[in-house]
Amino acid sequence: MSVKNPSLSVVLVSGGMDSCVTAAIAARDHKTAFLHVNYGQRTEQRELQAFQALADHFQVEHRLVVSFGHLGEIGGSSLTDHSIDVSCADLKNLEIPSSYVPFRNANILAMATSWAEVIGASAIFLGAMEEDSSGYPDCRRSFFDAFEEVIDLGTRPETRIRIMTPLIALSKADVVQKGTELGAPFHLTWSCYVREDVACGQCDSCALRLRGFQKAEVPDPLPYAVRPNYL
Amino acid sequence: MSVKNPSLSVVLVSGGMDSCVTAAIAARDHKTAFLHVNYGQRTEQRELQAFQALADHFQVEHRLVVSFGHLGEIGGSSLTDHSIDVSCADLKNLEIPSSYVPFRNANILAMATSWAEVIGASAIFLGAMEEDSSGYPDCRRSFFDAFEEVIDLGTRPETRIRIMTPLIALSKADVVQKGTELGAPFHLTWSCYVREDVACGQCDSCALRLRGFQKAEVPDPLPYAVRPNYL
Repeated sequence: MSVKNPSLSVVLVSGGMDSCVTAAIAARDHKTAFLHVNYGQRTEQRELQAFQALADHFQVEHRLVVSFGHLGEIGGSSLTDHSIDVSCADLKNLEIPSSYVPFRNANILAMATSWAEVIGASAIFLGAMEEDSSGYPDCRRSFFDAFEEVIDLGTRPETRIRIMTPLIALSKADVVQKGTELGAPFHLTWSCYVREDVACGQCDSCALRLRGFQKAEVPDPLPYAVRPNYL
Repeated sequence: MSVKNPSLSVVLVSGGMDSCVTAAIAARDHKTAFLHVNYGQRTEQRELQAFQALADHFQVEHRLVVSFGHLGEIGGSSLTDHSIDVSCADLKNLEIPSSYVPFRNANILAMATSWAEVIGASAIFLGAMEEDSSGYPDCRRSFFDAFEEVIDLGTRPETRIRIMTPLIALSKADVVQKGTELGAPFHLTWSCYVREDVACGQCDSCALRLRGFQKAEVPDPLPYAVRPNYL
């Protein structure tokens, strides 16, 4: 086990645009370790490719890819249960969408905390956003505050790990703007929940992403099957 | 997804004596679903055998066995990292022992919560005990209280899942006494961290178990390689 290193941070990198910008923010002040979780989603191979490309870009040495296939086994979500259709984007609908994986972020954060404690990291960065979170209950700052309390109570007395959510109060358009300022490599990311060759342009994730780029008036460098106007 | 069933409870069953007594307590008032986690421990096969025997005994239909091999991959514990020796029992030593898996219970509870939400269970039972917890920081009731808050904030608004720790304030001897009263099948359990044929009698887990039976003046039905007096 390594000695605690206050400048080392774990970054949760799905491979999407939010984690890309989060990594760019973390990399300004910290040595970073990248963690990617495969929880049985349809587009896992494409996301993993994006993860590795981002880790290469940020010259990250410590990389961990963890398989949470059991979250797929228990079902209950259209991301992992292929018998449920992925719902088309309805950005005015504030109900929890069918792509909700029950308690997904708690599973990911628990694993990230175990790894952070072992490698001596003092922070976990993730790209959660309240506004554009599609109503996922585990994307709110109050949830992360409560999880920090669990970390403080459930780890060694000398361990102190903060959960950093630098995008939490931003809109998707703000994230595009922030990433553009920082030179974040958006061309290496992947967001689509449905396709792996070109982005579908119509799933919740594509719609939120495209609307963010459109509002920020920045061109999205990814190829899309269709590119609707979401403004 | 099933309709919420207030009488359904998930029970975390490692296969040891504490989870056996916890299952016996839960089964008095609830229909139970058994969850077993393999996190890369040395004696996994033997524990899984105990899990299935206990599930048969309690006539449990819903069983889920989840592999958390990634907790082994990241190391940091003698239970999963074979390059670290399992420390011999030192029951006066209150330091966190080398068998500590970083943040293990948070990982298990996160998974249990996901499953509980999908199957509509209203409680998660586990056999954590503060007094005989060997100093594990994630075996204290304050940790579970904080985790309940995380569950409330991180799941669907209509979801309410309680964490039940009926053994939390008991000693190992109390647990033996309680299990004896309830007719808990101790002969089907496994506790040893080191061996799978007969219990070693000398690891932390064997020592705590044997001391509990000795204090309760109840014979432990398991075979042991050596059976020291821990009183």
